[in-house]
Amino acid sequence: MGFKLKAAPMQVTGKEEVYDVIIVGGGPAGLTAALYSARYELKPVVIAKLVGGYMTEAPVVDDYPGLPDTPGEELVNKFVSHVRKYNVPIIQDEVVNIYRKNGLWCAETASEKTICGYAVILAVGSEKRKLNVKGEEEFTGRGVSYCATCDGPLFKDKVVAVVGGGNSALTSALYLASLASKVYLIHRRDTFKAFKVYVEKAASNPKIEILKNTIIKEIVGDTRVRGIVVYDKSRGEEKTLTVDGVFIEIGLKPPKEFFEKIGLEVDESGHVVVKVDRSTNLEGVFVAGDAAGGPYKYRFEQIITAAADGAIAADAAFKYILSTKKT
Amino acid sequence: MGFKLKAAPMQVTGKEEVYDVIIVGGGPAGLTAALYSARYELKPVVIAKLVGGYMTEAPVVDDYPGLPDTPGEELVNKFVSHVRKYNVPIIQDEVVNIYRKNGLWCAETASEKTICGYAVILAVGSEKRKLNVKGEEEFTGRGVSYCATCDGPLFKDKVVAVVGGGNSALTSALYLASLASKVYLIHRRDTFKAFKVYVEKAASNPKIEILKNTIIKEIVGDTRVRGIVVYDKSRGEEKTLTVDGVFIEIGLKPPKEFFEKIGLEVDESGHVVVKVDRSTNLEGVFVAGDAAGGPYKYRFEQIITAAADGAIAADAAFKYILSTKKT
Repeated sequence: MGFKLKAAPMQVTGKEEVYDVIIVGGGPAGLTAALYSARYELKPVVIAKLVGGYMTEAPVVDDYPGLPDTPGEELVNKFVSHVRKYNVPIIQDEVVNIYRKNGLWCAETASEKTICGYAVILAVGSEKRKLNVKGEEEFTGRGVSYCATCDGPLFKDKVVAVVGGGNSALTSALYLASLASKVYLIHRRDTFKAFKVYVEKAASNPKIEILKNTIIKEIVGDTRVRGIVVYDKSRGEEKTLTVDGVFIEIGLKPPKEFFEKIGLEVDESGHVVVKVDRSTNLEGVFVAGDAAGGPYKYRFEQIITAAADGAIAADAAFKYILSTKKT
Repeated sequence: MGFKLKAAPMQVTGKEEVYDVIIVGGGPAGLTAALYSARYELKPVVIAKLVGGYMTEAPVVDDYPGLPDTPGEELVNKFVSHVRKYNVPIIQDEVVNIYRKNGLWCAETASEKTICGYAVILAVGSEKRKLNVKGEEEFTGRGVSYCATCDGPLFKDKVVAVVGGGNSALTSALYLASLASKVYLIHRRDTFKAFKVYVEKAASNPKIEILKNTIIKEIVGDTRVRGIVVYDKSRGEEKTLTVDGVFIEIGLKPPKEFFEKIGLEVDESGHVVVKVDRSTNLEGVFVAGDAAGGPYKYRFEQIITAAADGAIAADAAFKYILSTKKT
């Protein structure tokens, strides 16, 4: 910035580069945080294990407003070139630790680099919980999906299975029933954790067949999903159901241990508790996107919501640096 | 939806159409709410006074990730065609009242139409407070801006004026000082409402010249802004300053009276107090975008944040309808 922030990166010790904002993660939240930080004339750096994040896995994205029917890889390229236009360095590496040093935040990477800055925006996303069954990985993006909101419209008049027993499984099943020809709702337990109203709606919906006490043993197919092998635990029966899609809605798994190591406050599910400006219990550390949680974060894992989180965190980091950095 | 939501629009009386979600406003929040509602197989309708909202006024938008350097009108077209792809009706009209009737929410328009639905998403945005001086309207988009974050990068190495005395004026001046060659900070009073740290940074920044007790009398130019006529109230002096841009950062003015008429809880500045899911004190009424306020809303008036709000409100409206609508 005009008041000398632009001097970064400068050398503090022999091996450390100093930026204004270290952005960890290369999905929509991280890349948007980079765009906004650069537009604020801050000096940001992006460190990402996977540039593009989950977008890279999406065959087609049709829920990012203004860019209908865009292949995930193409959307990643659009985000990345937008960021590169502002000359933000994007380092492909994994951040393994973050710690405080000489009034700065320093990130240590898997390749043993140390990068320091005045603020950190963690936009590391969250893994989707997996069933860990045969065929799951093979058919991801080819019938196996972890997001009904994102991929549901591709299954109009098809037969799909939804796996899970919580609110997201139930609302996904109800939503999919409005467009698919049939929905199997597969739950390993006898009772549902989801709201009663959703369970009742699902039970009375003629398109939804609920299979309780049932697990998926295998997802089968050829070039894409064709069926699932299910096992009814109470009856001891195994059978194969013909389905075109499998929606696995069994929750998210943010990197809780990593957050705890840094000293961030996390909730039960491992999401970082953020304030409305995406600041955290650690001064100068912000969390944007799917890894954020707590009462001020509406959990809705979409590209558009992650991107907005990145913009908010960048604005908050800008104000934080404005208030705290000596000129 | 599968459980008969798709029957809408149906006739309740002779003159009323019934939708699932009535979306009021055609900016990024409203259009994204429409996109997400339609993807959820709800039946939405958009009623907008100005399709595109403030995007229509932007000569170039470079802060919507993935679409660099896009003229405002083009961005509006991209959003609108994305929504039209899902066959969402967009009605150009002004909603003058919203009330409860037979378990539905009904919107009354300026052209005396009545449109009813199960839920309402208000995405009516917020007017920017104006100086109301000569030249202001004429040069809007041609040197006059109400958003430093949006238009700042266009003024690299230029001379600009920022008008206002609150946090947004001060942070705008500090940000602009990092790229402009000179910044006049013009404030009508003797003291600033902004945080002390910002005021001190501005006072010590060699690029910023603070003019207190000073008002802008006129914005002058030819095809674009060339200067401002300022009047120093304490000295009784008038002079003309050569500037390339004028950033008016004196606050927002949401339609408070309209919100109060409907019965919505508003804060001091007229923004509607929303919960984390953009629901309000009125069951079934959601507020997304610049008109939203309260502790769960980080006020940062950007296209990306408004769009995310629209997606969140649509998700919440979907769940609200799922829970409350009789099948």
